[in-house]
Amino acid sequence: MKTLLLIAHGSRRAASNDEVRQLTQRLNVINPLGFSGVETAFLELAQPSIPEGLAACVAKGASEIVVFPYFLAAGTHVVNDIPEAIQAFQATHPQIKVSLTPHLGDSDLLPQAILQVASAA
Amino acid sequence: MKTLLLIAHGSRRAASNDEVRQLTQRLNVINPLGFSGVETAFLELAQPSIPEGLAACVAKGASEIVVFPYFLAAGTHVVNDIPEAIQAFQATHPQIKVSLTPHLGDSDLLPQAILQVASAA
Repeated sequence: MKTLLLIAHGSRRAASNDEVRQLTQRLNVINPLGFSGVETAFLELAQPSIPEGLAACVAKGASEIVVFPYFLAAGTHVVNDIPEAIQAFQATHPQIKVSLTPHLGDSDLLPQAILQVASAA
Repeated sequence: MKTLLLIAHGSRRAASNDEVRQLTQRLNVINPLGFSGVETAFLELAQPSIPEGLAACVAKGASEIVVFPYFLAAGTHVVNDIPEAIQAFQATHPQIKVSLTPHLGDSDLLPQAILQVASAA
C-alpha cells in the first residue's frame, strides 16, 4: 500500500495552510493511480509536522511512502531538512519504503501551468 | 506589445533565484502566444526588484504588462505587497496597462504536475 505525502512549508496564516489541505483533498478525489491515498505535512508553523505526517501514513496502512516536496525552489528545506526528516523516520521504521521525489519547481508542467494562468488574464 | 512579468519571492540562495531565471528563459523559448516576452522580478532578496522589473518591461517597449505571482500560497505578499507595487507603478505610468493574474497555487494544472512528478518516483 503506497501513500503520497505532500510536504509544504507551512505558514502563520491559517488560510495558506488550508490552501494546501484543499489541494491534498483534490488529489485524493483524483485518486491517483498506484496510490492508496494522499496526506499532507508541514515543515514548520502548521500541523501535522513531517514526523506526524509520516506516522499518519503508517497508521493508515502504508508500506511505502512517496514524499513530494511542495516547494518552488530547491532551498535548504528541500535539500537538507526534508531528507533529514526522512532519514530519522527510516531509522525507526526500516520496514517502510520511503522515496523522495524532485520538488514542484522542477516539474516540466510548470511552464504550461504559468502560461495557462497568464493567457486567461 | 504585451509582456509577462513573473514575480517570485527571492531567496538568499543564488541557486534558488537562478532556478526562477531559468524558468523565465524556458518561458521565453516557448514564446507564449500573445506575449512579446517574459521578464522576472523578485519581491525581495534578489534583483531585479518589482519596480525594476516593471521598468524593464517598459524599456523593452511594453504597452501592457501581465503580472504573474509565482507563489504557492495567497499570503500577504500575494494579497498586499504585489498589488501595492503595481499601484505605485501605475501612479507614475498611467499609460501602461497592468493586470494581475491569480497566483500559481491557484492553477488547475498543479494537481497534474504533482501527480506527474509523484508517478515517476
